[in-house]
Amino acid sequence: MNQLPWQQVRNPYKPVEVLSDDQVEAIHQAALRILEELGVEFMSGQALDLLAAGGAEVERPGGLVRFDRGLVEESLARVPARFTMTPRNDARALEIGGDAAIFGLVNGPPFVTDLDRGRRDGNFEDYRNLLRLGQSLNIVQYVTNQSVAPMDLPPESRHLDCYQSILTLTDKSFYATAVGRDRVEDALEMVALARGETREALVGRPSIFSVINVNSPRRIDGPLSEGLIALAEHGQPPVVTPFCLMGAMTPVTLAAALAQQHAEALAGIVLTQLVRPGTPVVYGGFTSNVDLRSGAPAFGTPEYAKASMAAGQLARRFGLPYRSSNANASTSVDAQAAYESMMSLWGALMGGANMLHHGAGWLEGGLVASYEKVVLDAELLQNMTEFMKPIVVDEDSLGFAAMADVGPGGHFFGTQHTLDRYETAFYAPLLSDWRNFEAWQEAGSKTATQRANAIWKRLLAEYEPPPLDEGRREALEAYVARRKESGKLAA
Amino acid sequence: MNQLPWQQVRNPYKPVEVLSDDQVEAIHQAALRILEELGVEFMSGQALDLLAAGGAEVERPGGLVRFDRGLVEESLARVPARFTMTPRNDARALEIGGDAAIFGLVNGPPFVTDLDRGRRDGNFEDYRNLLRLGQSLNIVQYVTNQSVAPMDLPPESRHLDCYQSILTLTDKSFYATAVGRDRVEDALEMVALARGETREALVGRPSIFSVINVNSPRRIDGPLSEGLIALAEHGQPPVVTPFCLMGAMTPVTLAAALAQQHAEALAGIVLTQLVRPGTPVVYGGFTSNVDLRSGAPAFGTPEYAKASMAAGQLARRFGLPYRSSNANASTSVDAQAAYESMMSLWGALMGGANMLHHGAGWLEGGLVASYEKVVLDAELLQNMTEFMKPIVVDEDSLGFAAMADVGPGGHFFGTQHTLDRYETAFYAPLLSDWRNFEAWQEAGSKTATQRANAIWKRLLAEYEPPPLDEGRREALEAYVARRKESGKLAA
Repeated sequence: MNQLPWQQVRNPYKPVEVLSDDQVEAIHQAALRILEELGVEFMSGQALDLLAAGGAEVERPGGLVRFDRGLVEESLARVPARFTMTPRNDARALEIGGDAAIFGLVNGPPFVTDLDRGRRDGNFEDYRNLLRLGQSLNIVQYVTNQSVAPMDLPPESRHLDCYQSILTLTDKSFYATAVGRDRVEDALEMVALARGETREALVGRPSIFSVINVNSPRRIDGPLSEGLIALAEHGQPPVVTPFCLMGAMTPVTLAAALAQQHAEALAGIVLTQLVRPGTPVVYGGFTSNVDLRSGAPAFGTPEYAKASMAAGQLARRFGLPYRSSNANASTSVDAQAAYESMMSLWGALMGGANMLHHGAGWLEGGLVASYEKVVLDAELLQNMTEFMKPIVVDEDSLGFAAMADVGPGGHFFGTQHTLDRYETAFYAPLLSDWRNFEAWQEAGSKTATQRANAIWKRLLAEYEPPPLDEGRREALEAYVARRKESGKLAA
Repeated sequence: MNQLPWQQVRNPYKPVEVLSDDQVEAIHQAALRILEELGVEFMSGQALDLLAAGGAEVERPGGLVRFDRGLVEESLARVPARFTMTPRNDARALEIGGDAAIFGLVNGPPFVTDLDRGRRDGNFEDYRNLLRLGQSLNIVQYVTNQSVAPMDLPPESRHLDCYQSILTLTDKSFYATAVGRDRVEDALEMVALARGETREALVGRPSIFSVINVNSPRRIDGPLSEGLIALAEHGQPPVVTPFCLMGAMTPVTLAAALAQQHAEALAGIVLTQLVRPGTPVVYGGFTSNVDLRSGAPAFGTPEYAKASMAAGQLARRFGLPYRSSNANASTSVDAQAAYESMMSLWGALMGGANMLHHGAGWLEGGLVASYEKVVLDAELLQNMTEFMKPIVVDEDSLGFAAMADVGPGGHFFGTQHTLDRYETAFYAPLLSDWRNFEAWQEAGSKTATQRANAIWKRLLAEYEPPPLDEGRREALEAYVARRKESGKLAA
């Protein structure tokens, strides 16, 4: 099976600019006006206290918070342009920000599907299998607390079982749940146990992160506000991501959606810097459109790709690390799933994204985690990674001598210049089948989706858990048991 | 059925630069050295005479031609940066060059396929159906003489039947065959008849064009050399396109392939300017890799996307209109066909391509024309076209008042700002299905490929030929009959 090695992905190209500098500035100014005049609601007393103390204008009751531009700009100036995610295995540390990007597993779907068993409720067994795939695929660089929601586990303690699975089945950075303070602290306690350290020692060394979704328009709910605060206190990056479906959660125009997204993201970012100045935070963009006839969300559309690139420009304007996603709205792992994901990936990566959320496995607008889509996406991510490998131009690669050796109409198959580079000259695909029609037909006429099915089965069959000290494994088990027995788990 | 209107596609974005300016210069210098020291073989006495008279160093016998850099640079300076293609229907005129692009139907496959009838030899009936699809789809802006090869017609007169079909079933610009002078002149005679003009009146008014493939490495065969000369004489643009499979027709490194491609393209371009200074010509890029284990060609790979963008930089460096392709190597219209095509399209269009050859219908490395792929590609081309529609940022689109009307956590479905823009706010897809799982399942759980099957059937059922004056139709018939009876058709 062809895989690229574990690696730090870097994008050497200048991102595509879909907005002029003047347009970026106009959107920023519109966002500042939204923050000054309309405000953002925070449904958390603690958040309101922090914001009031930091100089924002807090309306109580109601929780509407208005920000003057001085506070916003001061906060933006404090955000680090890049940081390193270091999971329990130091060898898996990767940078986020600047030209460095990191790709993650899908997060959040309530359903799971594969070609053999069809679409079904999320469950713990499938959850663990998705983690195993995430661990096995080098290009999946972080895993997630809800690659599919394990609906068969009690909601109040589910996160503990998931964290334990992550820390035993994988050794990569992970996305924790930030619904309330406790779920963040549990994640940090458990990472510390898996590393043989204390939670305090992790402060300022990012190892987990979580998306703080804004309930657009202009509302951050109570548990997520508290999750954001808990993350920021420990120097673990919140990824502040407004959920902006144009025509539903924002006005129907792209400019308005971008202005609102920008305002909402900045509001969350200000709070992070009031909690702990200089704490890392990621600017999240998630703007797409709905089908205005049905209200159905659409992803990987032309508007989505433009919004991804525009958001990247807004983030870079303030030196903020930027998160985008690999989204699509297809109901099956077909050509539509592939082309919508490609629109998303090009929009994200040529938009300068530093963190690609839902990088592998997202189907059906995020309702479903798909085994075959994990493999398809791994192929797409490998393709994009190779695309971002710079072209070498030097005397050797220009190959004049090789050309002089082969006459007009000849061929280069057997030349020394070719033979010397035979093994590594080109990207070797994970999923693509380049055999001729007859060979493909003899092998069963399998579509890419059917081949993906065989690949995930082989990955699961060959999966081996990464090493973990037995004492640490037991400490994790004991922690989970103790927490479950504590009677202090929030629903 | 949702289609974008017939339109002039323009790319408002700065193309992606995968090469530094220094690298572009190094590749150009390497190409000049290839032209000066190694040369390019032309297998046509007429071409050799023109090249010798123009100052190139011609080796006879053998036909190897060496070009000094002065001759190359002088020729490049004469090429127009843009031109307009005007087919028999003036309303279908479209610009090529600068920020303007044009998309075409597949050309060349010996086989044809669809979901119902499977893969079969190319034939005249399928050829005519592909033309009807090309005419019906607005985003397919030019059609082709061999969208599939009609193997059931005699090779020496096939082009006459194809031109007649093009000029009666469509009113778009077309790709003529340039294998020898006669096939070019027949195309021009027939376009003139369809327009009610003389062939001489078409000189300098591009209406047809053809790809002049270089038999890389460094050879342009006799019939294509003569086709190039015939096109250039009439001011119809040759598209000089080296066929550079790295590791086979060029050295295995991307830098060498680009240098060789550049040298070969420049050799052909010099000849066009010796025929008729200032005649339009397109710089064609077609560099991809092979699977070095099997020798099978691969398309839509990461290397292919980089090569497309790099070739765009080389073409723009000299103000040349640039041709790329929508290629893939998949054997079925599946996720692989979609993602490889997307790699090709992003590479081409964000590489600044002005002409996208094989834009719709190309499958299996170009061996097969697929009905379903025509529809899938039309969706991809529409997606890219919408992606290239600039974002509007002004007071109205920034929608501050609309935002002020909707409180935190509210929604924008029923607001006036949304209602006013309801119909046209977003791209409405041709093929994508955004319904929820239950609705999709009730409609038969169809993949995008199965839906594409229903779409082409509907397009064919609803097809209507564009108007053509009866006298001109008869003149075309009479021309074809006369030529077939002449006994002067070359095999």
